[in-house]
Amino acid sequence: MNDELFLQSSAFFGQLQAQIVAALEDLEGHTTFRCDEWRRDDPGTERGLPQIAGRGRTCVLEGGRVLERAGVAFTQIDGVFGHEQFAASMPGDGLHFRATGISVVLHPHNPHIPTVHCNFRRLQRGSVGWFGGGADLTPNYVNQADIVHFRRTWRQVCQAHRHLVDPAQLESACDHYFHLPHRGESRGVGGIFFDHHTDNPTEMLGFVQQAGLAFLPSWLPIAQRNQHQPWTPEQRQWQLLRRGRYVEFNLVCDRGTLFGLKTGGRIESILMSMPAAANWAYDHTPPAGSAEAEMLQVLRNGVDPRWLSELG
Amino acid sequence: MNDELFLQSSAFFGQLQAQIVAALEDLEGHTTFRCDEWRRDDPGTERGLPQIAGRGRTCVLEGGRVLERAGVAFTQIDGVFGHEQFAASMPGDGLHFRATGISVVLHPHNPHIPTVHCNFRRLQRGSVGWFGGGADLTPNYVNQADIVHFRRTWRQVCQAHRHLVDPAQLESACDHYFHLPHRGESRGVGGIFFDHHTDNPTEMLGFVQQAGLAFLPSWLPIAQRNQHQPWTPEQRQWQLLRRGRYVEFNLVCDRGTLFGLKTGGRIESILMSMPAAANWAYDHTPPAGSAEAEMLQVLRNGVDPRWLSELG
Repeated sequence: MNDELFLQSSAFFGQLQAQIVAALEDLEGHTTFRCDEWRRDDPGTERGLPQIAGRGRTCVLEGGRVLERAGVAFTQIDGVFGHEQFAASMPGDGLHFRATGISVVLHPHNPHIPTVHCNFRRLQRGSVGWFGGGADLTPNYVNQADIVHFRRTWRQVCQAHRHLVDPAQLESACDHYFHLPHRGESRGVGGIFFDHHTDNPTEMLGFVQQAGLAFLPSWLPIAQRNQHQPWTPEQRQWQLLRRGRYVEFNLVCDRGTLFGLKTGGRIESILMSMPAAANWAYDHTPPAGSAEAEMLQVLRNGVDPRWLSELG
Repeated sequence: MNDELFLQSSAFFGQLQAQIVAALEDLEGHTTFRCDEWRRDDPGTERGLPQIAGRGRTCVLEGGRVLERAGVAFTQIDGVFGHEQFAASMPGDGLHFRATGISVVLHPHNPHIPTVHCNFRRLQRGSVGWFGGGADLTPNYVNQADIVHFRRTWRQVCQAHRHLVDPAQLESACDHYFHLPHRGESRGVGGIFFDHHTDNPTEMLGFVQQAGLAFLPSWLPIAQRNQHQPWTPEQRQWQLLRRGRYVEFNLVCDRGTLFGLKTGGRIESILMSMPAAANWAYDHTPPAGSAEAEMLQVLRNGVDPRWLSELG
């Protein structure tokens, strides 16, 4: 195993967590994160689960001025597959694996500030190691400037590393991954997604570092310029219904969440991605021509390609 | 296929739906159900999904006096498996299957009235047909009289048919099925669960009919005697956190929900089981000695066996 690269990645993810937590506390002004350090020793192989030992630092902020619920989690685990089913879903060889990563999910109070997520990780199995990650934006209302800013930030990171990654491929992988087949809807308005990148590991670490550092600039300006927009109870209700979809994606579709739940991971860290509150209503259909209907149309049919052609 | 028994079952489930809807409208007084008849013709076999044609009647009540959200659904479908994965999970032979059933999920406003669910179904695949079903109670607070009433109702139905079903086996199957492994918690305080009952079909239809008719008497008296109990905002908040667990069970653990989502079923009918509202909070731990801690203790360790020994 290329331990050096794994340790470098892990060190970076830990530093990035501290930076993101500090920046979000600045945005909040008064509310701070609760940070839990956890350590897990091998619990044995019950029910064919992997043997996993690891540690992490889970930081959560609830009931803030801007953030209704926010999670920033760092993890580093070493495991042995106890079940071929899990082993079959990963590249590499043998039953040992290691993983380290950072995961961020921010659910703001204000329906005019989009929910945002990013995750970056390094995995190793036997002699094979790879990077994966992504970032995606989940607004409740269509705001062209926000979408263009977010998508442009990520495209620029990719373009600066286009000898390593294909920007168009990472963008379309994001649309493909963050999709709810049972609803025929996207989770949001795009970003990037990549996995199983085994080639050029040293250069890829550079890309992952730049991507990690791009998270705050991709979202903070959007939060800052929308944070004082007033909202109505009807807009809050729409936000809660959209959060129901976020819950559906995470619990039904998200590979990382399901892997965590099935391998007996630390439940409070895995489900820090859940919103504080989510609603469901039978056959909810926004009125034609409403801002809510416009959002749904984008989630069903995609972002206007003309907006994306301007990203440069 | 034993079409006669399938049609008898389907007719019974349709009548039972009408009876349950009428009784719940009586309980409400003013709010009525919205009932949607739907029909689905074969959508073709995209992505290896089963070809399914069918019809149903989905009845939903939202914002009632007692019921915050209630769903009572009748379904009858004919399908052809398009994917060996689904076929492998069912008894019988060949790729044709039929299913008919009723599903009921009631989420009351008042945290002192338990959420309740039941489902009864007849399936056929090739030459093999079987019944399945169950009922379970999900309170937010431990109320011995409610638990004993609910569990006694179902035990009596089983005992009246003990030449067909083993009451203890159906009760322990319920505890086993309605369980969240990732939380180490039960969804509720028990009831019954059974599946793949292929023997004695004519007598089993009699059992399923008696079980279906037991649903209202198992829950209505509990709702009636608790409906005027006042509740605090803290009790409402606890109820919403428990509903988060209900969402987790349905989206992560429930075979019926996942089968529906993966086979492209009618989404609004499948997810009528979701509560109107659910919350998540990081590492929520009720104070020692509180009524909320008492509930959690029962969900983790089971109902006091002395209460169940009194059921007769």
